[in-house]
Amino acid sequence: MRQTVIFYLSYLLGVALSLACLVCVCVWSARWRGGFAWDGSGLQFNWHPVLMVAGLVVLYGNGAVLYRVPLTWGQNKLPWKLLHAALMLLALVLSVVGLCAVFGFHNANNIPNLYSLHSWIGIAATALFAMQWVAGLAVFLLPCSPTSLRKLLKPVHVWLGGGILSLSIAACISGINEKLFFVLKASAGGAQPYSALPPEALLANSLGVLIVAFGLVVFFILSNQKWQRPDSRPEELAYTPLLQEENE
Amino acid sequence: MRQTVIFYLSYLLGVALSLACLVCVCVWSARWRGGFAWDGSGLQFNWHPVLMVAGLVVLYGNGAVLYRVPLTWGQNKLPWKLLHAALMLLALVLSVVGLCAVFGFHNANNIPNLYSLHSWIGIAATALFAMQWVAGLAVFLLPCSPTSLRKLLKPVHVWLGGGILSLSIAACISGINEKLFFVLKASAGGAQPYSALPPEALLANSLGVLIVAFGLVVFFILSNQKWQRPDSRPEELAYTPLLQEENE
Repeated sequence: MRQTVIFYLSYLLGVALSLACLVCVCVWSARWRGGFAWDGSGLQFNWHPVLMVAGLVVLYGNGAVLYRVPLTWGQNKLPWKLLHAALMLLALVLSVVGLCAVFGFHNANNIPNLYSLHSWIGIAATALFAMQWVAGLAVFLLPCSPTSLRKLLKPVHVWLGGGILSLSIAACISGINEKLFFVLKASAGGAQPYSALPPEALLANSLGVLIVAFGLVVFFILSNQKWQRPDSRPEELAYTPLLQEENE
Repeated sequence: MRQTVIFYLSYLLGVALSLACLVCVCVWSARWRGGFAWDGSGLQFNWHPVLMVAGLVVLYGNGAVLYRVPLTWGQNKLPWKLLHAALMLLALVLSVVGLCAVFGFHNANNIPNLYSLHSWIGIAATALFAMQWVAGLAVFLLPCSPTSLRKLLKPVHVWLGGGILSLSIAACISGINEKLFFVLKASAGGAQPYSALPPEALLANSLGVLIVAFGLVVFFILSNQKWQRPDSRPEELAYTPLLQEENE
C-alpha cells in the first residue's frame, strides 16, 4: 500500500512537471519570442522548442512510465503496449516536425544545419528514438517475433529508452542555453543581456530546471523494481489477460 | 561466462571512452585554448572543462560501476566501499576546484556568475553530488547507521547517483556548446566561425559525443541486474568476507 501511494505521488509529480514544462515553453515562445508561424522566419523557429519539449521530453517520459501504473497490471498487456507504441509514435512525429521547423528556418536564412554540439546530440537522440521505435514494433508487437529475441532485447530496449531521454534532456538544456545567449544581448536595442537575468532568462532557465526535474522523476519511477509490472509470463501470451498480482 | 565477457567488454569500452574524453578535453584546452595558468585569465578558465570532465564525468562514472566488477565479488566489501568513497571524494574535489577556476576567472574579469542555464545545471549537479557523498558516508560507511536506514536509502542513493551523472552530462554538453559559440566567431581575427566546423569545433563536438557515449556505457552497466554484486547479507556485516557466488 505504501509503495502504491509513493508511486502515485511520484506519478502525479511527473504529470505536474510535464504540464509546467509545456506551459513554460509555450509562454516563452508565444509571449517572449513573438508567437508562431510557418514562414521561414524566427516565428517558425519558435515551434522547435515547443515541439521538442512536448515530444522528446514530456510525451516520451510519460510513455516510458506507462507500464508502471499499478491500475494497468490486472489488465491484458496488449492495449497498454499499443498505447505505449502510439504515445511514442506521437512523440516521434512531434520531434520530427520540431526538427523540420528549425531546418526550414535555417534554410530560409542561409544558416548552416547540424554544426553545433546541441544539434549533434539532438539529431542523435531523434535518430536513436526512431530506430528504437521501429525495433520495438518489430520485436515486441509483431506476433511473429520469437520469445527468445524479446527476452534478449527487452533489457536493451529499457536501457536505450533511458539513454534517449538523457540525450533529449542534454539537447534541451544546451538548446535553451544557446538560444538565450543568441537573443539576450545588451547590444540588441536596449535589451538586457542574459547575464543580467531578465524575466525571459529566468523563465527559460526555469524551463530547463523543470525539464531536469521531470527527467529525475521519470528515472525515479523506472529505477524502482517494485513498480515493474509483475509480468512473468512469456511475451507471446500477450493476448491472455493477466491475473492481478499483489506485489507489496 | 557469457555475461562476464559482455561485462568486461563493456567495462573496457568505458575505460577506453574515459581515456578518450580526458585526451580530448586536455588537447582542446592545451592546444586550442592556449594552455593552463591560475592567474584570472582565460588560461585559468581552461582548467574548468578539464577538471569537470575528469571529476564529474570520468572519475564519477568509473566510481559508480566499481561494485559491478565480478573480480571484487568474492572479497570483503569494505575495502571496495572505501575505494568507492575515495574515488567519489577525489571526483568531488576535482569538480570543486573546476568550479573555483571558473569563478576566479569570472571575478577577475567582472563577468557575472551563475546566470546561464549551464551554470545552474552544473552547480546543481555538484551540490547534489556533495550532499550524496556526505549522506553516503553517514549511511553506508559509519558503523552506527542502522540497517533499516541503509535498506531504505540504498535505492535512493543508486537513483540519485544516476541522476547526478545525467545532470553532469547535460552540464558538459551545454558548456562545450556555449564555449564554442563564444570563441569561434568570424569576427575574431579571421578565425572560422563555429558554423564552418573548423578543426577545434570538430574536436570539441567529438568530446561531447564521447562524454555521451561514456554515460551510455555506464548506464548500460548499471542497468543490468545480473551484474549487481550478489550481496544479500545485511549491510552491517561488511567486515565478514563474502562467498563467491555464481550468478550466471
